[in-house]
Amino acid sequence: MQTSQTGNLMVVQCSEGCPVANAILAGVIGEALNHETIENVYGCLKGLHGLLHEEIIDLAEESQQTIRALQHTPGAALGTSSLTLKRPQDIERALQVIRAQEVHSLILIGDLDTQESALKIAEAAEEQGYKLSVITIPASIENNLPVTDHCLGFGSAAKALSLTVRELSCELASSITSGPRVHILEVPGTQSGWLAASSTLAKRRNEPEDAPHIVCMPETHFETQGFLSAVQKALVKHGYAIVVTAEGITDADGNFVAQPADPADNLSRPSVAELLANLVRTELSIRAEWSRLGVLASTAAHCLSQND
Amino acid sequence: MQTSQTGNLMVVQCSEGCPVANAILAGVIGEALNHETIENVYGCLKGLHGLLHEEIIDLAEESQQTIRALQHTPGAALGTSSLTLKRPQDIERALQVIRAQEVHSLILIGDLDTQESALKIAEAAEEQGYKLSVITIPASIENNLPVTDHCLGFGSAAKALSLTVRELSCELASSITSGPRVHILEVPGTQSGWLAASSTLAKRRNEPEDAPHIVCMPETHFETQGFLSAVQKALVKHGYAIVVTAEGITDADGNFVAQPADPADNLSRPSVAELLANLVRTELSIRAEWSRLGVLASTAAHCLSQND
Repeated sequence: MQTSQTGNLMVVQCSEGCPVANAILAGVIGEALNHETIENVYGCLKGLHGLLHEEIIDLAEESQQTIRALQHTPGAALGTSSLTLKRPQDIERALQVIRAQEVHSLILIGDLDTQESALKIAEAAEEQGYKLSVITIPASIENNLPVTDHCLGFGSAAKALSLTVRELSCELASSITSGPRVHILEVPGTQSGWLAASSTLAKRRNEPEDAPHIVCMPETHFETQGFLSAVQKALVKHGYAIVVTAEGITDADGNFVAQPADPADNLSRPSVAELLANLVRTELSIRAEWSRLGVLASTAAHCLSQND
Repeated sequence: MQTSQTGNLMVVQCSEGCPVANAILAGVIGEALNHETIENVYGCLKGLHGLLHEEIIDLAEESQQTIRALQHTPGAALGTSSLTLKRPQDIERALQVIRAQEVHSLILIGDLDTQESALKIAEAAEEQGYKLSVITIPASIENNLPVTDHCLGFGSAAKALSLTVRELSCELASSITSGPRVHILEVPGTQSGWLAASSTLAKRRNEPEDAPHIVCMPETHFETQGFLSAVQKALVKHGYAIVVTAEGITDADGNFVAQPADPADNLSRPSVAELLANLVRTELSIRAEWSRLGVLASTAAHCLSQND
């Protein structure tokens, strides 16, 4: 806390899907009690929605047991929403609530959109000459914030994923006499391949041939022939192949490989893993299975990383 | 060991996909050393394939460290195959190898097909007057063996799955202000719904409303209107809905809801979860996500159950 202004602290959990958003919250509450300049610790309910609608609770009233349990609870205990502050009247309203609650330290936990909201609130406070320290804590399993070395949440998601791939490879390696098998695992990531790439982290030291054998990321264009020959090469070497793909990979023209029927509704994007599995089956006549983690990638609270 | 015949023990890992097949193997080896009537402990490589082709290793030669590590290794360390012994010449060949190796105790680890192969070997041995104790250890994450109370492997898969559903519900409950959300999770099970049903095990005591809110199993026919109204009911109560479905659910006519284009190739069965998610989206205009565990359900060695 760089501010020496005595006042209240408010913490807001923004954006979705981070296994440690609650652990961060527990950390913030614990640390806040060590600072004499901080009087009350408030939490906004339902993310920035709670800030606009003045839905606020006193976090110091919660039992220590509750706060401790947060360390292992996925999701966002205060509730969250995808709301961001873009309109000037929303920023103004947020600042009104902040002033009314005598908040001089504001902590936002979230991803890229959260950073933008934070910046706008900070700028508005400065314009009005109101002393407000705004701190953002980058939290995103996709690790898609620039400049930051790593986002909180990414470590745990990466740990759970790489463990899953390692265990999957034990399974597939067991049964190669039943014929070659290819498994395609789809993980979140529409703009960045950090999470897909992190699936390689459980490779053993000096064992570059460990699974995954192929990783498809949005940063490089997907190319069918190259993919199929990489699969064939892995099959020759290992008798099985494990492919990890980000959901948002694109072709040479920059179009999503799994293009939704209605591009406006990206929630209905079909499974990339299924498309790739069908490709392997039809082009190589090889047994191909697939699985899709989706939001499960961000809820593995039983796999929390020390890094987080 | 009911036999008092002194001789060798042979252990075979049959069939695929069980997180504790190796833990069972470690148990068998450990226990065998306590019996004076057992001289050597052999392991067949690649399941019954190894028995037919006399690919056999001496398990007592392995280090204790290796055996201990088996307790936490998914897959089948000896290798496995989907081969079953059905043809008389195969049974005869298996018995030849068994006699040549002076094996008087045979342990098979596996599912329903494994039991049948075991029975045939036992019958053939008896016909020939060769003293052979055949023991099968039921192992199947789908828990689809009759008579048995529970198959080994099921407990761990059930634990991993119910934990996953519980964590998923924390995530979805966090963000209901972003609008109602439905998540459909597809799990293995073409003939039985044990695994899908086990997803309810992490419900808290006296909290019947905990997720999952809807479970679709092969034992009951899927009915579209009933499903959609159950989803709507859950949304009204909780603001979100979690559905767990076995991959092999059928409609009123007994056809698979996710019918593969070519029924002979059931590996290319499309995703039931995707179909149900599309149903929710088109009929209810509600945001619906889905995920598919596939073989990942049988590899969660980091979630081993005490029950196994």
